[in-house]
Amino acid sequence: MSNFGFPRLRVVNPYAVAFREARSAVGAAELLAKAEEYGSVAEAVADCTLVVGTSGAQGRDLAQPLRGLQEGARLIRTRLKSGNVALLFGSEKRGLSNQDFSYCHWLLRIPTRDEHSSMNLGQAVAVCLYELAREAKGTVRREKVDLATTAQLELLYQALTDTLAASGYGKRGSGVSTEQRLRRMIRQLDLPAHDAEMWLGILRQILWKLRGGQPS
Amino acid sequence: MSNFGFPRLRVVNPYAVAFREARSAVGAAELLAKAEEYGSVAEAVADCTLVVGTSGAQGRDLAQPLRGLQEGARLIRTRLKSGNVALLFGSEKRGLSNQDFSYCHWLLRIPTRDEHSSMNLGQAVAVCLYELAREAKGTVRREKVDLATTAQLELLYQALTDTLAASGYGKRGSGVSTEQRLRRMIRQLDLPAHDAEMWLGILRQILWKLRGGQPS
Repeated sequence: MSNFGFPRLRVVNPYAVAFREARSAVGAAELLAKAEEYGSVAEAVADCTLVVGTSGAQGRDLAQPLRGLQEGARLIRTRLKSGNVALLFGSEKRGLSNQDFSYCHWLLRIPTRDEHSSMNLGQAVAVCLYELAREAKGTVRREKVDLATTAQLELLYQALTDTLAASGYGKRGSGVSTEQRLRRMIRQLDLPAHDAEMWLGILRQILWKLRGGQPS
Repeated sequence: MSNFGFPRLRVVNPYAVAFREARSAVGAAELLAKAEEYGSVAEAVADCTLVVGTSGAQGRDLAQPLRGLQEGARLIRTRLKSGNVALLFGSEKRGLSNQDFSYCHWLLRIPTRDEHSSMNLGQAVAVCLYELAREAKGTVRREKVDLATTAQLELLYQALTDTLAASGYGKRGSGVSTEQRLRRMIRQLDLPAHDAEMWLGILRQILWKLRGGQPS
């Protein structure tokens, strides 16, 4: 919850020992300290305009409409603009009861394999909240990578052909086609600028050595 | 993994007690029974053409490109058409080390809140695999480029370090960090298999010459 920016946890009749242990979860101490305890689902969702239950069981005879996570998340995001929405999860062992479902406007299903639809509770929560937050933030920040310029690549190419000539490799090649192939291969490397510089340093050291330089 | 249809688990030096306990996970017994154990990351990813690490740490000075989960998942799905892809997760406590990162082509980041980017391991795996499976239903065109496997890249890495040692380059480096940097740089080259072979031939020729071979 804390990872994806959902700060309000409400718990219904929590098992006291497990709940107290959970307070040590890394980074989520504040969220857990602020969790509100209720004696019933009815009280916990009293101020919500939409209550969505979660269920992995398809075979179950469900009285509520069942929506896939993507579609459901879209509807929830829309509703969040005008009121509180409760996303209701059952206990690890039993999930939600029919009594719990009766408070739900509709149910959400994570698109798991048909053969294995029962999910770990914490993982189900994480996946649902990830999908809810997924479109909300827009694009993820991308780290800018400076790519090597054509000039840098040409220096690399020169150093490489000099090195190949000094090693005798070129003699076996078929001239122009080898040259073109090497140039293409260097382009395809898609080198970041700082990597290009390191490769150039490496080639120059090798070349110096091939040409009879003394060990440094 | 089982929920979202990813059947192949590989574990590197698992903590035996926890691993044995995990075998009781509901519904995933078969997947866990088939999990393959490896002694090192290198062995575990040897047959993969793409290795993607996971990291929540933005502040960390990362040497590899960092991609958001949505963009990353798109790239992974494309790559899965032509080879094995490894999605690498670190231990719950420490995550991946820089040594682990050096085997990665790039890193994946789940778009968490900046204030709380460290995720529970199981939840991080669930969210990543959910995203990977999310769009998978759509039709996919087959566009086959055979990329170099990790084993091929390791041969290249060995030839390169041998060549550097023979040229005196290694002596200037700072050991482990240079080693990791070279490994990372080779991963980032994104080599097609037949290019990898040509680079290997080039390096071996240079090495042969550096070690005193006669001109051919």
